[in-house]
Amino acid sequence: MRLFIFLSFFFVYTFAIRPGPVIQASKGAVWPKPQQQEVSETYYLIRPHSFTFEAPVNIGCPSFLDDALTRYWTIIATSITSKLEETPEANFWELDDNFLGYLETLTITLLGECPNENILPELHDNENYTLTVDSEGAFLESETIWGVLRGLETFSQLIYAEQDTLMINTTKIVDFPRFPHRGFLLDTSRHFEPVRIILQMLDAMAYNKLNVFHWHITDDHSFPYKSRTYHELSDKGAYHPVSGVYEQSDVMKIIEYARVRGIRVIPEFDTPGHTRSWGVAHPELLTSCFTDNVANGELGPMDPTKDTTYDFINNLFTEIVDVFPDSYFHIGGDEVEFDCWKSNPDVSNFMKQNNFSTYEQLESYFIQHVVDILDNLSSKYLVWEEVFVNGVELPNSTVVHVWKDNGLSTLNNVIKAGKYGLYSSCWYLSVLHSGSDWDAFYKCEPGLLLHTEEEKKLLLGGEACMWGEYVNEFSVIPRVWPRASAVAERLWSDENVVDISDAQIRLEEHACRMNKRGIAAQPPNGPGMCF
Amino acid sequence: MRLFIFLSFFFVYTFAIRPGPVIQASKGAVWPKPQQQEVSETYYLIRPHSFTFEAPVNIGCPSFLDDALTRYWTIIATSITSKLEETPEANFWELDDNFLGYLETLTITLLGECPNENILPELHDNENYTLTVDSEGAFLESETIWGVLRGLETFSQLIYAEQDTLMINTTKIVDFPRFPHRGFLLDTSRHFEPVRIILQMLDAMAYNKLNVFHWHITDDHSFPYKSRTYHELSDKGAYHPVSGVYEQSDVMKIIEYARVRGIRVIPEFDTPGHTRSWGVAHPELLTSCFTDNVANGELGPMDPTKDTTYDFINNLFTEIVDVFPDSYFHIGGDEVEFDCWKSNPDVSNFMKQNNFSTYEQLESYFIQHVVDILDNLSSKYLVWEEVFVNGVELPNSTVVHVWKDNGLSTLNNVIKAGKYGLYSSCWYLSVLHSGSDWDAFYKCEPGLLLHTEEEKKLLLGGEACMWGEYVNEFSVIPRVWPRASAVAERLWSDENVVDISDAQIRLEEHACRMNKRGIAAQPPNGPGMCF
Repeated sequence: MRLFIFLSFFFVYTFAIRPGPVIQASKGAVWPKPQQQEVSETYYLIRPHSFTFEAPVNIGCPSFLDDALTRYWTIIATSITSKLEETPEANFWELDDNFLGYLETLTITLLGECPNENILPELHDNENYTLTVDSEGAFLESETIWGVLRGLETFSQLIYAEQDTLMINTTKIVDFPRFPHRGFLLDTSRHFEPVRIILQMLDAMAYNKLNVFHWHITDDHSFPYKSRTYHELSDKGAYHPVSGVYEQSDVMKIIEYARVRGIRVIPEFDTPGHTRSWGVAHPELLTSCFTDNVANGELGPMDPTKDTTYDFINNLFTEIVDVFPDSYFHIGGDEVEFDCWKSNPDVSNFMKQNNFSTYEQLESYFIQHVVDILDNLSSKYLVWEEVFVNGVELPNSTVVHVWKDNGLSTLNNVIKAGKYGLYSSCWYLSVLHSGSDWDAFYKCEPGLLLHTEEEKKLLLGGEACMWGEYVNEFSVIPRVWPRASAVAERLWSDENVVDISDAQIRLEEHACRMNKRGIAAQPPNGPGMCF
Repeated sequence: MRLFIFLSFFFVYTFAIRPGPVIQASKGAVWPKPQQQEVSETYYLIRPHSFTFEAPVNIGCPSFLDDALTRYWTIIATSITSKLEETPEANFWELDDNFLGYLETLTITLLGECPNENILPELHDNENYTLTVDSEGAFLESETIWGVLRGLETFSQLIYAEQDTLMINTTKIVDFPRFPHRGFLLDTSRHFEPVRIILQMLDAMAYNKLNVFHWHITDDHSFPYKSRTYHELSDKGAYHPVSGVYEQSDVMKIIEYARVRGIRVIPEFDTPGHTRSWGVAHPELLTSCFTDNVANGELGPMDPTKDTTYDFINNLFTEIVDVFPDSYFHIGGDEVEFDCWKSNPDVSNFMKQNNFSTYEQLESYFIQHVVDILDNLSSKYLVWEEVFVNGVELPNSTVVHVWKDNGLSTLNNVIKAGKYGLYSSCWYLSVLHSGSDWDAFYKCEPGLLLHTEEEKKLLLGGEACMWGEYVNEFSVIPRVWPRASAVAERLWSDENVVDISDAQIRLEEHACRMNKRGIAAQPPNGPGMCF
């Protein structure tokens, strides 16, 4: 039967040099791998011109789900490859016992309540769904619209092109994410990334069931966020006051584009370090550095000794909490360099007055103020691991973002202390070796040191991080995809899904799938071509 | 004077964290650096609407130079940045003593003979030119049209945008290449690269004064060249017989696009290894591999024992020499795996009959036949270093392409043996570390072990090599550029041009210049933004 060739999920690759692609892509395999899936050899054909989603009236709430149906209809209808084999074998299915007929409908049932039109994705949302394609037809069920979105993505991935025909195998899928926080960090400070690139990233995130866009929006080199309160921050601190900024309307567009895809947008305004760009417009926020007790003109981290620093942060963060609707805010707190603080006599005096004997205490003093500001704003927060390690008092809702080497041990300490943990130590997309570079991401297991169910619940998930030093708008998408897909599968699929050979075959298909959908993913596995 | 700020050629970068780009780009600096250049602070403005090239009638020969003038006029006219500073300082030049007026013309003089319309770029072409911008105007002189092309590129790079104005400083340039063979290798077998990508590569090569496109067109994984003689090679051996092949018309287009930019196209049809894709249509060309004296179905390198192998190669290479007009042909000869030959009893018998005691002798026997075929076709050739190391008898016109580690010593041996050497050992673009990864290319000096003028003359230059395992059409351009620019400067500029700090500043500008001209170059130096 030809289908045995098509469904080469378990193709074994030997290292002998063979012509053709080094990894033969799967057909209709789902990425990330569902928690439970049975596939059989019987199949339907799909004719886009007559295929529809059957959604009862209750699926119209919120109405943005209708847009999702249109989106996925388009993806399915355009997934017939334009790179056809020379001569299609006419109607190969006609004498095939496995052919079940034409699938005309996916019936979608929202089991839970009809949500408000303005519903936001949140931490711990239910994203579960079941998807059945059997002799009765195709059925997607979920308690929530988020689960419906995840199920639609899966349904679209089950469909594959064979010659000029779309096919889907019968299958039964019960699926849910392993972790509730599956993130992608993009740094838009080291290089400015145009809005269209961010929207493409959000598309790709949805194709990989990632659900948190961690927007590392500012850093030392530029301040591209155009604030309503302090527009001078980007007027002077962006690379360019017009071409290098995110207007309020851009931010709105990004948040909404993410929301309707079930993706949270968590902004990061890193302090007290990584703030050099703030000081172009507001040098008074930063510490003056001294050489031999004389101010040398350089500026360091934020000045923790002045009340005016906290007033400014309070004003700005009040705006940010209003602009970004997510209940979490990433307040940074990483890599504070103490040299400048050490050099400044006012800082030294301040430490004496407050009986601080270490600069970690001073850093904690600063962060404690920021944390208090956010508590007053009723916003929860994420912090980089240094904040926890340095002993800042944090409420248990805080998420500690672990990023340094030896992260598993730090993560263990975070969770032992009853805080939420988020992991990134092994998922830095800036780390390169061969150019392919996804297998180490795939093999990394964040829960290795966690044993009890309670501990495991405190590990919220992780994030693939794309720091911006060496990527611009031309290189960032192929640098990220499909490498971040490896992280996406680790965070969604069961922890026993660790077979690299199986992953290679599915990722080969998935990278090509992304290409077909307009995402400029690079090749994951070596020689090959997408069809 | 404002110009002091503009012309920050020798800006010293300190490692303190400063807002803004980590490297401040130069303005109007030339890449690769000219052999001799004096720049002064006086400048002209250029108004694209009235600027023209003044070329005496003799410049119309060949007429493709007119196309080059149009191309460069467009580049210049569109090089005003669209990312303007907010409020241009109105007419900043009006009270500036350094302002010389408006430059209306570049006068071009072809000192040598008017060449034939069909002239081809060749090894050892004269590419010298002089370019003068002084109070009398702007003047480009060259003996050859190739020198005129290089000078036009330089002229276009001297012009920079300041606010909404184009400027050019007075300067005197005497320029010529250090090496005659400055190449870029692209592997179109591991991944197929669309013709539009190759044309973009040729554009970028011209912007970097590279003059040889080494087209590694076939390899184990696919055979994308559609042969007139043996079209089944690509019908069966390409990734796809339609979407994954270069038609004859594509090849013609690429050769012509290169030619009018002064770029030679050298095809490589690698044998006897790296030929697995040939065997899909013609398995009889390859050696059958055996396990325990039984053919195991695997195929190895070409079968060196059969006359029919050489007949086939003769027929194909007769076509290739006709299709590709360059007088050189790269015949490969690298990485021949002996295991399959060793396993095959016919090969063993053949070796006994011919008194071969080593497989290197057998390889030499094969290559000797290929070399004889090319000698009969009056084509010169390049070979990978193994061919030389294994002792194949080669005429002194042969170019030995050194690529392995310890290449300087091999290169020295090549040249001591009186052969031409070409260097690539340190210029593999697939080697990655930080993502930026051009400084090691820049620091690599191929002539280190060569002392006499005679030895130095035998070193023809080098090539930056982009092997195709991990790059597709979406990632290959940012992977190559501006990293190959580092190689381009090493091969064009004086060997004393080794200052990385100076190079960083100019490369920052050059990468942005390429972006502006439509080349999706990645950032070379870390945080920054192009204007």
